[in-house]
Amino acid sequence: MARPVIALLSDFGSRDHYAGTMKAVVLGICPDVTLVDISHDIPPHDVLTAALELGASYRYFPPGTIFLVVVDPGVGSVRRAIAADTGDYRFVAPDNGVLTVVFKDAPPRRIVELTERRYARPTVSRTFEGRDRFAPAAAWIAKGVDLSTLGRSAGDYQRLAIPSAQLAHDSIIGEVLRIDRFGNLITNIDRKMFDKFAQSGAIEVFVDTRRVPRVVATYAEAAPDEPCALFGSTDHLEIALQGASASERLNLGRGAAVIIRKT
Amino acid sequence: MARPVIALLSDFGSRDHYAGTMKAVVLGICPDVTLVDISHDIPPHDVLTAALELGASYRYFPPGTIFLVVVDPGVGSVRRAIAADTGDYRFVAPDNGVLTVVFKDAPPRRIVELTERRYARPTVSRTFEGRDRFAPAAAWIAKGVDLSTLGRSAGDYQRLAIPSAQLAHDSIIGEVLRIDRFGNLITNIDRKMFDKFAQSGAIEVFVDTRRVPRVVATYAEAAPDEPCALFGSTDHLEIALQGASASERLNLGRGAAVIIRKT
Amino acid sequence: MARPVIALLSDFGSRDHYAGTMKAVVLGICPDVTLVDISHDIPPHDVLTAALELGASYRYFPPGTIFLVVVDPGVGSVRRAIAADTGDYRFVAPDNGVLTVVFKDAPPRRIVELTERRYARPTVSRTFEGRDRFAPAAAWIAKGVDLSTLGRSAGDYQRLAIPSAQLAHDSIIGEVLRIDRFGNLITNIDRKMFDKFAQSGAIEVFVDTRRVPRVVATYAEAAPDEPCALFGSTDHLEIALQGASASERLNLGRGAAVIIRKT
Repeated sequence: MARPVIALLSDFGSRDHYAGTMKAVVLGICPDVTLVDISHDIPPHDVLTAALELGASYRYFPPGTIFLVVVDPGVGSVRRAIAADTGDYRFVAPDNGVLTVVFKDAPPRRIVELTERRYARPTVSRTFEGRDRFAPAAAWIAKGVDLSTLGRSAGDYQRLAIPSAQLAHDSIIGEVLRIDRFGNLITNIDRKMFDKFAQSGAIEVFVDTRRVPRVVATYAEAAPDEPCALFGSTDHLEIALQGASASERLNLGRGAAVIIRKT
Repeated sequence: MARPVIALLSDFGSRDHYAGTMKAVVLGICPDVTLVDISHDIPPHDVLTAALELGASYRYFPPGTIFLVVVDPGVGSVRRAIAADTGDYRFVAPDNGVLTVVFKDAPPRRIVELTERRYARPTVSRTFEGRDRFAPAAAWIAKGVDLSTLGRSAGDYQRLAIPSAQLAHDSIIGEVLRIDRFGNLITNIDRKMFDKFAQSGAIEVFVDTRRVPRVVATYAEAAPDEPCALFGSTDHLEIALQGASASERLNLGRGAAVIIRKT
Repeated sequence: MARPVIALLSDFGSRDHYAGTMKAVVLGICPDVTLVDISHDIPPHDVLTAALELGASYRYFPPGTIFLVVVDPGVGSVRRAIAADTGDYRFVAPDNGVLTVVFKDAPPRRIVELTERRYARPTVSRTFEGRDRFAPAAAWIAKGVDLSTLGRSAGDYQRLAIPSAQLAHDSIIGEVLRIDRFGNLITNIDRKMFDKFAQSGAIEVFVDTRRVPRVVATYAEAAPDEPCALFGSTDHLEIALQGASASERLNLGRGAAVIIRKT
């Protein structure tokens, strides 16, 4: 039988020991696990970015994967710690909306609150529940412990308000949600909405106040030094520059308006 | 039987191949190992930070874990390469004080110098002993080779002078030792010293010249834009700001004074 | 039997999910694999740096290791996707010269183009072939699929023009190719060329317009605040400063001239 997979996502960074210490705790409970980092470099406290990165990545993991997601500005406070089952996957996270994108795709079949103290470390730090509560819970699930054993049913869960693109008669009004390492400006306009809108005639793309001259299929097709629009790996429209950072060159970031208009 | 765990800590960064190359060497000797990164982003040559990160993390690893610690400004020089056994754990490192915090908690039962050439790579680079001497030694220990086989007994070891908090009649005088990714200023004042001092009456906390208005239990309890003091995940007092970097906002770093006074 | 090893090298960075998503895809095909990161922090689109990092690292991995190399500015365009076998190792990469240094050491016995659609994901994104084409190919090779099954023979391959040091009667003219995390300036002058040149009399080393006063064997031997020259872990001459970044202090980067002259 294949070893269980635990995929980690956090804002702990790579300089401090925090991510390594979570893995240490996991290995103490479930030595025979495969640990995979999605990212630990989510900007500190940025629950929305974490939700989007997780949403872009989780479906590529093998069924059965357990996601240990710790972006947790409310650590130690009244926000709940939860575990959720979506059928193919299990998730352990604070109940702060970080699972919003996942749950939109794959509604949870069951959510429990991590209340059973024997599946946490004996002392739970009020500043590092990743180590003392979330990591042990993920490891126990990997060991085969059923979700219902980890705590009481959690009922509803927190959702983030993630800006969605607005479709009007003669325009789509979207915005930049993510900027990746290459400086690509990734929007909330998906291919389906775009294709439907574009099938009835020629369109123009604007980012902020600037017209984007071309919609292309690959970065390499773009003209040098000219922004282009294309559909990236999650099938969302992005604004890019060949071999350069669109974010830096255009001086634009999260929230920048992206508008599609009929010409 | 569970696979052996090797935990890595270095200042090699993530841009160069160095950490990956150490893992390559380990896998060539002991393929059936679980490799865990504590951090490779220790500031270059910063042995003190490495000692503190290791000290904060090691005890969460499963017994039997081997720590491969390579922060080694004296690489290739007369400083010794050592392996140590503390009972629960084994450590492979340069003898430059990087194990000071660990050894204070868990005195070594045995320390050997890595003198046996057959447990190093055939040629040992004078600039990258991590690859040629430390990684092979860790891998051979993971394979079951006894410490005494790796070289001659090492006798005493180097210690770093780590500033400790001073307890006086009416004050504790400590300082900031670590700044984490969130900008929390982590001091050398531990909960035990603090509690004993605070039990006899009201206290005030100062960082540098500024009074810290509140001692709280979680980051979320702090008032916005106001520094707070709390005990972090290693039970040391830290100065923090809710959702922001205390280090940046207060413009303070390692060595900043933190003082507790009776009011 | 030991588990197969897949070593990853990319310019995906650590902030986005891209590297984690590639690992997810690998684990879905070949769960019983050991994944090792060489680096994901190659500067964006910097094929030359990737080629050099891979060249400095690959030979330390156990025979049989599969290298998944995705620095791919031409993603989605006509550049080919290839897999190569050098006897000891297999490589999966875009055909853009990123394997130049490896192939110079270890000429490929066979190269195929990744044309067989059933060894890619059902839909191949034009912007993220790492996920949809390269990762699956590496995983299938790890599962034991023969290279010839992955696609048609690829014939010749792209090479990068990597500047080589020039040996003249009274000088070696080299240049800085890589700068590592420590700020060491690593040149294209190897020890063999240097030793041969230096055996016939005293020499001097210059970097840019500055004389480097000493050639040493270890960083620790250098005089404080004085640049030195030494042979690093790949046996290439580098310019370094004890405990500091030579690149920052001398304000020099890739392409800086390094000249050895007879005195």
